[in-house]
Order: sequence, then structure tokens, then C-alpha cells
Amino acid sequence: MICVNAVKAMDAADPLAYKRGEFQLPAGKIYLDGNSLGALPLSVIDRLQATVLEQWGDDLISSWNRHGWIDLPQRVGEKIAPLIGAATGQVICCDSISVNLFKLLATALHMRPGRSVILSVEGNFPTDLYMAQGLSTLLKEQTCQLQQVSESALLDSIDESVAVLLLSHVNFRSGAILAMQAITAAAHAAGALVIWDLAHSAGALAVELDARNIDFAVGCGYKYLNGGPGAPAFIYAARRHHSAIKQPLSGWMGHRNPFAFEPQYRPGEGVQQFMCGTPPILSLAALDAALDVLADTSIEQRRQKSLALGELFVDLVMQCELADALQLQSPTQAEQRGSQLAWSHPQAYGLCQAWIEHGVTADFREPDILRVGFSPLYTSFRDIYEAVERLRAVLASGTHLDPRWQQREKVT
Amino acid sequence: MICVNAVKAMDAADPLAYKRGEFQLPAGKIYLDGNSLGALPLSVIDRLQATVLEQWGDDLISSWNRHGWIDLPQRVGEKIAPLIGAATGQVICCDSISVNLFKLLATALHMRPGRSVILSVEGNFPTDLYMAQGLSTLLKEQTCQLQQVSESALLDSIDESVAVLLLSHVNFRSGAILAMQAITAAAHAAGALVIWDLAHSAGALAVELDARNIDFAVGCGYKYLNGGPGAPAFIYAARRHHSAIKQPLSGWMGHRNPFAFEPQYRPGEGVQQFMCGTPPILSLAALDAALDVLADTSIEQRRQKSLALGELFVDLVMQCELADALQLQSPTQAEQRGSQLAWSHPQAYGLCQAWIEHGVTADFREPDILRVGFSPLYTSFRDIYEAVERLRAVLASGTHLDPRWQQREKVT
Repeated sequence: MICVNAVKAMDAADPLAYKRGEFQLPAGKIYLDGNSLGALPLSVIDRLQATVLEQWGDDLISSWNRHGWIDLPQRVGEKIAPLIGAATGQVICCDSISVNLFKLLATALHMRPGRSVILSVEGNFPTDLYMAQGLSTLLKEQTCQLQQVSESALLDSIDESVAVLLLSHVNFRSGAILAMQAITAAAHAAGALVIWDLAHSAGALAVELDARNIDFAVGCGYKYLNGGPGAPAFIYAARRHHSAIKQPLSGWMGHRNPFAFEPQYRPGEGVQQFMCGTPPILSLAALDAALDVLADTSIEQRRQKSLALGELFVDLVMQCELADALQLQSPTQAEQRGSQLAWSHPQAYGLCQAWIEHGVTADFREPDILRVGFSPLYTSFRDIYEAVERLRAVLASGTHLDPRWQQREKVT
Repeated sequence: MICVNAVKAMDAADPLAYKRGEFQLPAGKIYLDGNSLGALPLSVIDRLQATVLEQWGDDLISSWNRHGWIDLPQRVGEKIAPLIGAATGQVICCDSISVNLFKLLATALHMRPGRSVILSVEGNFPTDLYMAQGLSTLLKEQTCQLQQVSESALLDSIDESVAVLLLSHVNFRSGAILAMQAITAAAHAAGALVIWDLAHSAGALAVELDARNIDFAVGCGYKYLNGGPGAPAFIYAARRHHSAIKQPLSGWMGHRNPFAFEPQYRPGEGVQQFMCGTPPILSLAALDAALDVLADTSIEQRRQKSLALGELFVDLVMQCELADALQLQSPTQAEQRGSQLAWSHPQAYGLCQAWIEHGVTADFREPDILRVGFSPLYTSFRDIYEAVERLRAVLASGTHLDPRWQQREKVT
């Protein structure tokens, strides 16, 4: 039986406990949704003020050089690189994951002439599938088609028609981790490439892109990197593929010399050619400042704490009446899941909303999933204990059955 | 001979003079580059602070509903609509101009099966051409090819191979206005569509998209709309074309129900289907606040003042020794140019840099253009007088010949 004193001891022994003070967190609330939107790092506040008042306001257009706006996508990319196990010159921060997937899918098809299949798994994040569908519709079925198979059938489905696999490292719903290295090796053996979506892993668990011989990846700036709502995304491209990049969103910022205003597109060097239009500097500056908060922690520390937070949550559920109400839909082995837990419940939406009213934010995912995220930099063990206590109170009081929760809001 | 007192009288009679107080402008400097990056509206400062501290910081993920982040692209689009003569439901704010052009070019080709030509003019803004080149490379020459002709040959080049014309309303270098209505009518007569790039016109001159029977347009948030560096761009699509939209960047935010997480893409209604990934909320909120500054002024007022500023600049140049040094590359008829003037000079780059050292910011464009922009909301007639005086001082002193200006910076 885990008691509150044991939980307090966990916080006292937590080497990352001091990081909580580097975030603004709403008083009295418990936030278990950093896997949707990371909390506000205090470093962002001053940085945005300087970017707006001193840079935009005072130095205006000259800020592109004076304050390095022009190189910011590269510099932010270089800050992200060590978080995902990438050596220098392979990561750039730009656009959204969706737009970046389109660039990579087109590049991969170009690199594998004669192959037309984009292979993915059922239950992959919808926008990944939608972008593949969009490219397929544009290029016609004979040159590009999306095939989806079950996870268990994935390895057997990689044949010589497959140009590229499009996979999420951590499933957005269940949190299950795919075997990145083994799948990539199998794809390579069949002559296929792989694009990994790191939305739910970058910053939270080790991805080791270089060591695992990954081809391409995309990831999210606003989850575990805490870059703010809709923060720009990033692209990783292994150096060995740089000379083969051919991406159709060839905007001026990806040109070798954007300000020469040449009539013919000439791609920039390496990952620069993934740039397209002018980047949203305010959002990019916020992400840049947010990344500094991660700099003095290691991925091992973050992963270890995230696992411990998740295990505590599971243990607390299992030792009380919640064990009968909630069904764990994530892998039972902690090492096989990302930094989140998915629990099914017939009234999961009402449970999520009532929990929010009790001061705990998690999120709901169709059709019946209560998704609980663990951000190791600002979530305490005491938060987990308190969150479970409040969930027990919700279920005991029956407020999750409130008719208000029959109508779902657009975003949860 | 225009004297300083006459200029002071112009400011005294200016109905827009009070708007200057709604911007932060660097003390002692004159900013004639609002056509590259608009100045900082004071309204943006408070809005960003609230978006960061209260929304992101305190309300976190719930802000998507509570503070309307989810509808912000539509709401900003609706604020832009009246500035460009568009009725409701036809404008949405998202991504960059480059990305948005790709969506529209693909849509236009889809709407005109059997036609493969994207027709543009020489000297169009490079990123517009680059995006057409990117699409053409992806789709192969037989289904999509970019043709560029001289402006004078444009109308004669519209034949039955042309699917879509890709044109800038105001030329980024010379400021020359293309005859939007006549060209669109000629294109329609030949069965072609037209995409207009409003980067250098939105907010500065009347575009009247609905009245002119325009098909599609894109525009920029960070020039005359003052939305901040890299502010999101916008798309206009005439309502009559909504059922024909087929755009390949089909990300989840363009889905009819993004949070249903359906495996199949179903396009949202109307312009919503131009959305792709998650929008950068901080940059979008800044643009939203910036647009409020335009709300109590009319396009007629802004255009009239912009023309008067430009004419004053020309007159002041023509009445002094600058007339021998500078060659006007913009149309001589004020009504035929946008809100800028292009002057050629053999040492235009040095002139621009030395002028900056004398406290006047304009910009240089390859190969020999000094480009001077007029933002009617915050530029005074006295600014123009003073700027010309300082340009005379630069030329008289010869500082534009300084060897420092032989090495050009990346962005000017």
C-alpha cells in the first residue's frame, strides 16, 4: 500500500524536482496533459518580450541579421538535435509536422523510383495518414498509394513495392512504443526507407536517431519541448541522404541564396532545403527559449522519472477501487510505453471533464480513452497521488455521469 | 519648391496622423521598410502577454476552446476579408504564402483537367515561381509546367493549355500594379483560373476580390498588416469554387472533424480545408491584435495617404540634385504603383546601408534597386522630408562608397 508519505519521499529524492520552479503552473491545479501542450517555461516570457519590444519594435527589419532571425530555424534545430541523438547539421525547425511529412514522403518516393507504397499501421496518428492520402491523390495511385496494416503484420508487409514506412515512434493513443531500430533494419533490408514521427517521444525518451541508422524523422515543438501552442515542428534527415533530398515545397527560405532573388530554384545545403516560406519568428523564439530549460537535464533522468511517475499512477490505481473501473490500454511493461497512459472507461469523456472540474487536466481520446501524460520536468509524485485521489472522488460522486458531458467540445 | 513648412502643413491636415501613436517606433529613426516588415502595433504587446501568461500559462490546453485558439485561423481570416474586398467565409489565415500557393496551384490544376500550364511573368516574386517549379517537378512536365513570359506578352499567352495564371498584384521590386480585373477576365475568357499574390497590396490598396470576380489569392501578414516577423499568411478562395477545392496538404486541421481522429481524410467546409497542421498560436495572436489597428481606417484613406507620401518623395527628389543620381524604376503614374518606390543607382547597396547609418531604413533589392516603402498608418510627411534630406547628405558625403558595403549581408 503506497501512502502519501512514501510519495513525499519520492519527491524529496527526485533529482529533477528543482526544474518545476522553471515553469509557470496554475495554482492548485494538476496538469497531466503535457503530451498535448507543454507548460510555459519562465524563460519564454523574457525572451518573447525582448523579441517583440527590442527586436521587432526597435530594430525592425534589421533584426533578421542583428538578432539572427534568419538562422533561427537552424539554431533551434541544433538545440533539438542532441535531444534526439542526432549529430550536427541534420535537424531544422520549420512548418508543422503535417507539412514536413509531405516534404519527406515526396523525397522518399523520389529516392525509391519504381516503388509506390507508403506503408503505415492502423491507428497511426490521423494527420500522418491524411498527408500520405493527400500526396497519393495528387500523384495518382500508380505512383503513390498508402497501405495500412496491423502492427503485427507490419514486418511481413515490407516488400519491394514499399518505398517508405511512415510510423509513429510512440502511439498517440496507447503510448505503445514501436521497435524503431528493428523495424528500420527490416525496412532497409527490403530496400525501403522509414520516416519516424517523434511527436510523442522527442524530449521524453531516448530516440538515438544516428545510432539506430534512422533515415528521416519529424517531431513536435509543443509537447515535451514546451515551445508553446502550435510551436514549429522539426525535420531530421540523416546526412547520408542529403544529396538525395528532393522536396516539392521549394519556397524561398530553402533556396541556396534566398536574397539573390534568382528566378530558378536552387536547393540550399543539407537540411536547409527543407525550409519553405518565412518562419513565424515569435513562435520560433518561444521554442528556442523553451529548449534551454531541458539543457541541464539528461534524457536518462527524464525517462527514468517519467517511468516512475507512470508506474506510481498504475500502482495507485491498482491498489484501490479504480482498478475495477479503468482498463489499462497501454502496454503493461513500462519500458514498452512512452510518457503516457491510456485508460479505457465507458464514460471516459465525462470522467475527463469531471476530473478537470476537480482540478486535474488530462485528455480524452475517441472512443473511450482517458489519456494521462507525464512531463518529468514539472510533474511531481505528489501530483500523481493527488490526481488519483481526485479521480476516486469523481467516480465516488458520480459527477462523470453529468448530462453536461453528453455534448463534446471541439478540443479536449 | 516644397519647403518644410508645406510638409508640416500636410501632417497637420492628415486624417490618419493619430494612428502613429498606436505603434512603437524607434526614437530618432525613420522607417521606410514597412513593406518588408510592418512596425509593432502597441495592441500586440498586451495581447501577446495575455496569450502567454494567462492563456498558455494558466489555462494551458483548455485555451483551445476557452480562448478560441481553435477558431483563430477563421477569425483572423474574417478580419482580413474586408481589407481585401471579400465577403465572409472566403478567407482563412494559415501557413506561409509559399505553402498556400502550393495548395492553390494544385487545386487549380485539379479544376482544369487536360491543362498543364502555370503561366506567370518574368520578375514575379521568386518564391511564387519556386513553388510552381516544385509542383511541376513533383507532377512531371506533362501534367504541370511553369511558363514565364514578359508582362507585355501575358494576355497573348493565355491559351487552352493554361490552367492557371500565377501573378503578383504589385511587383515586389518596381511596385508596378498589374491590371487585376482585366487580366482575370481575359483568363476566364480562355477558361483559365488566376491566383493573385497580394503580398504587397493587402492593407495598402484596394483589391476588391469579390467585385473583380477573382478566383484565388494569397497574402502576407507581416507587411502592411503589421502582424510581426513571419506572421502567418492567408488564402482567399471565391465561394463559387469551394466545392472544387482539392488541395494535397490535407492535414488534420483541415479535416471536417479533426478530433474525431478518423483514419480517412474528409475535407472541412469551405476555406477550412486549406488548413493543414496546428497553427502557430503566438504568431497568429499577434497578427489578430495587429489587425485591430486598421479597423477604424478605410482603404481609401490609407491609399490616399500612401499615394501622397510617395508623390512627396518623388517631388522632393526631383527638385534637388538627387534627380540626377537616382532613376525611378516604378511607374511614373502614382495610381499605377503600390505603396513603394524603386530607384536604381549604381551604388544602391551602399546608398541603402549609409542611409541606415543616417537613421533611415529602406531596403536594397538586387541588382541596383533602393526600395522605399510607405506605410500610411505610421509614416509622416515630415518623415519623408527628413529622409530625403538625409539621402542628400549621404550622397554629398560619399559614405555610400565606403568599402564596407562591398560585402553584402544575407538580408537587407
